[in-house]
Amino acid sequence: MDYLWEDTIAAIGTPIGKGAIGIVRISGKDSLKILKEIFRTKEGSKKEKFENRKMHYGLVVDRFEEPIDEVLAVYMRAPKTFTGEDIVEIHSHGGIVVVRKILREVLSKGARLAEPGEFSMRAFINGKIDLVQAEAINELINATSEVGAKLALKQLEGALSNKIKELRDKLLEVKAYIEAAVDFPDEEIEIFETGHIREKILEIVEKIEKLVSTYKDGKVLKEGIKVAIVGRPNVGKSSLLNAILKEERAIVTEIPGTTRDIIEETVTLKGIPLRLIDTAGIREAIDKVEQIGIERTMKSLEEADVILFVIDGSIGFTEEDRKISKVLKKKENVILVINKKDLGLKLSCRESIDWKECVELSAKSTEGIDELGEKIVNLVLLEPETILKGEEPLLTNERHRELLESAKKSLLKVIDSLDTGFESPEFISMDIDEALYSLGKIVGQVTTEDMLDIIFSKFCIGK
Amino acid sequence: MDYLWEDTIAAIGTPIGKGAIGIVRISGKDSLKILKEIFRTKEGSKKEKFENRKMHYGLVVDRFEEPIDEVLAVYMRAPKTFTGEDIVEIHSHGGIVVVRKILREVLSKGARLAEPGEFSMRAFINGKIDLVQAEAINELINATSEVGAKLALKQLEGALSNKIKELRDKLLEVKAYIEAAVDFPDEEIEIFETGHIREKILEIVEKIEKLVSTYKDGKVLKEGIKVAIVGRPNVGKSSLLNAILKEERAIVTEIPGTTRDIIEETVTLKGIPLRLIDTAGIREAIDKVEQIGIERTMKSLEEADVILFVIDGSIGFTEEDRKISKVLKKKENVILVINKKDLGLKLSCRESIDWKECVELSAKSTEGIDELGEKIVNLVLLEPETILKGEEPLLTNERHRELLESAKKSLLKVIDSLDTGFESPEFISMDIDEALYSLGKIVGQVTTEDMLDIIFSKFCIGK
Repeated sequence: MDYLWEDTIAAIGTPIGKGAIGIVRISGKDSLKILKEIFRTKEGSKKEKFENRKMHYGLVVDRFEEPIDEVLAVYMRAPKTFTGEDIVEIHSHGGIVVVRKILREVLSKGARLAEPGEFSMRAFINGKIDLVQAEAINELINATSEVGAKLALKQLEGALSNKIKELRDKLLEVKAYIEAAVDFPDEEIEIFETGHIREKILEIVEKIEKLVSTYKDGKVLKEGIKVAIVGRPNVGKSSLLNAILKEERAIVTEIPGTTRDIIEETVTLKGIPLRLIDTAGIREAIDKVEQIGIERTMKSLEEADVILFVIDGSIGFTEEDRKISKVLKKKENVILVINKKDLGLKLSCRESIDWKECVELSAKSTEGIDELGEKIVNLVLLEPETILKGEEPLLTNERHRELLESAKKSLLKVIDSLDTGFESPEFISMDIDEALYSLGKIVGQVTTEDMLDIIFSKFCIGK
Repeated sequence: MDYLWEDTIAAIGTPIGKGAIGIVRISGKDSLKILKEIFRTKEGSKKEKFENRKMHYGLVVDRFEEPIDEVLAVYMRAPKTFTGEDIVEIHSHGGIVVVRKILREVLSKGARLAEPGEFSMRAFINGKIDLVQAEAINELINATSEVGAKLALKQLEGALSNKIKELRDKLLEVKAYIEAAVDFPDEEIEIFETGHIREKILEIVEKIEKLVSTYKDGKVLKEGIKVAIVGRPNVGKSSLLNAILKEERAIVTEIPGTTRDIIEETVTLKGIPLRLIDTAGIREAIDKVEQIGIERTMKSLEEADVILFVIDGSIGFTEEDRKISKVLKKKENVILVINKKDLGLKLSCRESIDWKECVELSAKSTEGIDELGEKIVNLVLLEPETILKGEEPLLTNERHRELLESAKKSLLKVIDSLDTGFESPEFISMDIDEALYSLGKIVGQVTTEDMLDIIFSKFCIGK
């Protein structure tokens, strides 16, 4: 990948849109040279010295010396930068035209437009971060919830990388034993006993399994819990939705204009994103249950991670509720929500033993909403305790899961070989190499160009 | 407005969306204190010294010392900052969740969420920029074309402010003469001759009129030239549109993913935005001209600044073309576009003397597109030469135009008084004060709170 060192890349680093500040970011050996060509002091003269990491006020000019904007420019000297190369950032007024024009000027001075993720890719290739950390940057930027962001940051800080490194180190140890046996077959190295090796490898397999088992929770936290709210009319479904929204709004509406769009898409409860799925279709299916049959109706509910079955507790269970309950009782992921507690309940959870999960609440007064949140989380997450504490790294990335699975497969082959006793140590060593190769691919110790292309092309430009 | 000094404001400074970098911006006396409370070095310790204007690498933590993100933080010491106050910027990974979380942390440490435009308002109140310059920042951010951005930058650099100052200075001179006459009525001050004063004031009125006359052009440049493309089917209307788009695309498509949306909205030709208005309705109106009458059809064309009437020159003027031309001939702002020059023309502009403006071109080879661009600009702008050179400031803001008009009105009253000779110098002096008041309001030498509210509420938050 030596070609990378030769050229200097540039891109817009801020989101596209209207904002106070826009940033054009340059990385590579010509960064400072390019800055000097387009930067002028307020008096209009060139500037020779840019102090490392200091923001310098001035103008960016085009090739006719026409000012494009007043800017703050900062030069960050290699190698202590994000990419490990010289980096220049030009901070201009936000807005689309100005930022684009500055980028164009930078490109005209010899920088090349960066590919998506190319800054992060350079950081990876220059050894500033490993592949798992690079992927974490992308997850951080794309996070839709605080928990998702926290997971990504943990990964960026190296929690998962360290775990992988630990597995690799243990495996390298095993490999050393085996190789000793291969190199000195006559010395009867004591430690090369099938039992000892087997135990060591099983230990690693178990650790891999434990990590893989976090994937479901990790994915839920990253992508959100899909929640369907069902029930007959007037039981308070939309009040319940508003009550959940209100919990969230209390935190975020202090930042007007910035968050509405996101809230409308994803609600978060205790920092975990809830994705409310369209229940119009589900309601219709339930209404027609007698026509289309329970099986088919349930199929339309399959998408949901959790189904909230809302009834009006001040009235009790009606005939219509019973019709719906017929469909829902077959599902494991239903929470019975007895609403309108503020009006006095004619039905309690104690009387509803048919339902594994049940909450009495008032959407109006929001009493019980917290409990509902906990029930949802407990129902969906395999290990809610560990996760909410957030101390153990979680798998959130399909690529990591696949590679861990394939490492496990290779190690199970090793165990199989040890058990049958048919294979030579050389052969066993090859399977261990396969496992190491898979683990190495996760953090990027082993890479192929294709693999990098696939990973980094998912990034946004400028990162 | 002393209350402003007391609190520290904060907001997200980058556009909302996914991007590599997000910025939270803080201004006010507690900025540095707040930064110190939430910033930790990579080793997790607090940092006491932040060098002025230097980017410091570290972490932002929440109240549980949980890291929120890795950041670059910069402290800019008052008064040499945008607002004139201490400013802190925290540069984090982009994306909505992280930036919002950092802002929330900053707010929890005592900063107040900034009102829209409040950073610029503080810059204004602290005398860093005048009101015209503050408004220019907003125009710069909202510019949809390079010419628009250039006009805004000129205004930000003080071109219009200087012009207003010049007018005020001249008027203050006149006022001094008049006041001398008021203070020393017996001394027969020579310079207080009606003729001399009259001449001076007329000179100022003329300058005001000249400036006001640039408003139409300024508005067009800022908002774009509304262009309607009409013609019978198959004359090449959409090829023409594509040819114009191509001119533009050649410049901007080197920046993929960033500009498509804007192009689709506004095409720019020579940096001037063309807004293509929906011509479907117009076409329909023309088709039905015999039913609904020419007058009503023309009404639907009124919205357009320029109408491009496209015909297929390789065929010549058909019966259908003639029908359309009957409608268009009554309009002043039509350019006859004889298309398909590449196929050989059966009709030339020389033969089309009925049409004041005419271009022969080939949308296919783009021959003649440049000429069309010039014709459009010349047809719409009053002074295309001056404007394209961009040396004189243009009015682009309705508020400025109104205040200049009212200054002019006051000065015409002065001239009237001088001509009739009925008014006392005191009375004349009052009219001059009115004019000075209007001019002062433009740059903000005179302000009211309402006025500031109206102006700055149009800004985005964070600016």
